[in-house]
Amino acid sequence: MNILKKNLFTLLLLSLWVSSSQAAMRELPAPNTVSPEMQKLTEAAPLPFWNLHPKDHAEWKSFVQSVAEATATELPGLREQMEVTVTPGSIAGVPVFTVTPRKIRPENSERILLHLHGGGYVLNPGETGTYEAILMAGMGGFKVLSVDYRMAPDFPYPAAMDDAVAVYRELLKTVPAEKIGVFGTSTGGGMTLALGLRAKAEGLPLPAALAPGTPWTDLTQTGDSYFVNEGVDNILVSYDGWLGEAAKVYANGHDMKDPMLSPIYGDVSGFPPTLLTTGTRDLFLSNTIRMHLKLRQAGIDADLIVFEGMSHAHYLMDPNAPETRFHFTELKKFFNQHLQ
Amino acid sequence: MNILKKNLFTLLLLSLWVSSSQAAMRELPAPNTVSPEMQKLTEAAPLPFWNLHPKDHAEWKSFVQSVAEATATELPGLREQMEVTVTPGSIAGVPVFTVTPRKIRPENSERILLHLHGGGYVLNPGETGTYEAILMAGMGGFKVLSVDYRMAPDFPYPAAMDDAVAVYRELLKTVPAEKIGVFGTSTGGGMTLALGLRAKAEGLPLPAALAPGTPWTDLTQTGDSYFVNEGVDNILVSYDGWLGEAAKVYANGHDMKDPMLSPIYGDVSGFPPTLLTTGTRDLFLSNTIRMHLKLRQAGIDADLIVFEGMSHAHYLMDPNAPETRFHFTELKKFFNQHLQ
Repeated sequence: MNILKKNLFTLLLLSLWVSSSQAAMRELPAPNTVSPEMQKLTEAAPLPFWNLHPKDHAEWKSFVQSVAEATATELPGLREQMEVTVTPGSIAGVPVFTVTPRKIRPENSERILLHLHGGGYVLNPGETGTYEAILMAGMGGFKVLSVDYRMAPDFPYPAAMDDAVAVYRELLKTVPAEKIGVFGTSTGGGMTLALGLRAKAEGLPLPAALAPGTPWTDLTQTGDSYFVNEGVDNILVSYDGWLGEAAKVYANGHDMKDPMLSPIYGDVSGFPPTLLTTGTRDLFLSNTIRMHLKLRQAGIDADLIVFEGMSHAHYLMDPNAPETRFHFTELKKFFNQHLQ
Repeated sequence: MNILKKNLFTLLLLSLWVSSSQAAMRELPAPNTVSPEMQKLTEAAPLPFWNLHPKDHAEWKSFVQSVAEATATELPGLREQMEVTVTPGSIAGVPVFTVTPRKIRPENSERILLHLHGGGYVLNPGETGTYEAILMAGMGGFKVLSVDYRMAPDFPYPAAMDDAVAVYRELLKTVPAEKIGVFGTSTGGGMTLALGLRAKAEGLPLPAALAPGTPWTDLTQTGDSYFVNEGVDNILVSYDGWLGEAAKVYANGHDMKDPMLSPIYGDVSGFPPTLLTTGTRDLFLSNTIRMHLKLRQAGIDADLIVFEGMSHAHYLMDPNAPETRFHFTELKKFFNQHLQ
């Protein structure tokens, strides 16, 4: 929210496009069972662009650009606060950012976390995709490699996953899979899971651990919380907004129930330990817990954290919220436990 | 639901008391991401007695009696299906039922599970409190000791917990704590956690593992899902029904934020491994996940399962639903892992 509030002028312009962003929210008391920082996020108005329906390439580009500008203004301060450096590079022809904390914990010197950013396969290009990677590197003391994968509408499915897998495949040449963890939020969480499926399909060794945060496991509007938490989640608000449009423009006519698009339909047998995170108000609550149940039914060591009162990915929206620190501390513990 | 539907005549009589049980439910599509059995439970009308407000002792007794009669008709068939025998007895002056499966798994011959039934500290007296214990014994292959603790309005706080602790204390004379697990649903889940707090306070060794299902950790109407899932959960529906009345009649003027009434306010440091269960539509979703977060923050090995589309304790309402078997299989694995 910090990210998106500061550049309010851009967002106000954006909201001129939006037909009916007001009426959609259910009236609910703000939870008094969360930190003051999280309470503020919970009380905030819905994101002004939730009900955006870009009609053509130019409108997509303008949307993506506006959000990217808002995020970009946050990055220098965040890097400073988290005491990390971010270095652009390229692996297997794919642009990446290496995020290095000031102090790498000794046990992490040979480990690496692969980061797949969120944004519906359309948002957060270039450096703006590193926001979550910076939090993880800073709070977890890990070196993080964030993949600037190609996105829709220019590059629809399977470009994003092709890029993620290309980087992972190349990384395996210098780092054993046992020392690699993969994480990401929302679309990045779905891609984290799809990466496991792709690794299996292509005969690559699986990463040692996966941490998908509120993952987009089902691109079709299937799952109970798409309905129960519609108008409750103040970040995504509804499937019937930019989110559903993003699913369409990324899938590009491909069957959205393909497991590489919607990993909930994949075979997760043999998956490594997986930690999933969501919130009680999250539109993706069902996307997350359905995958958790599926993993447990397949006998996988799968763990789940559900945050109180939290909408979609709120744990990324205020670096000073205790919930944010708790989330990344849980990820740190999880990767420390499962990476060699 | 099976339990409560068969004795429909009694329940219809009950519903004559009820002022406004219809209007309260939100209109939502039935989830297609659950089993047909669970879908049926999800589509069912709200329990007819959710909005009951017993005015005096006689109305409480009549309410308790009606629900007990409905449950009692289910028990013989359930015992047969689960292949268990149920033997009444008494421990430390407290009536108990020993539920013994036809086959006790060899590794479980010296282990025992202590069961605390649900029902808002008012419902499920006598044998009717054994329903969940029968499922656990049958599906898990454990010997289960179900406590028929005293209840409100005749015996308000702390009678129920006094009885539970008395049985546990006596049990410790013949079974080491390392071989004892404790479980229960709803009120029984809250009591499972309060038993941990009482054991600490009284210097007793803690049980080896706790499995509170959708536990009533906060008797005050505090927690986000009391609001978000009001009219979504078709079992409890709302705090402002018999549930809130039960809290009052059990607390009996005592501060409801006392940790022995609302364990969310207790100090859980030193707790044993704990597995919590809830559902996305559960009025007690926040009661459950708040306790899960609290346990993890205290460094406790705490695990969480959230069922898709599930209202309060639906996993107890159809013994043939795959979700029911999954739930008790998870509990079996959990206790097998943590009991000596």
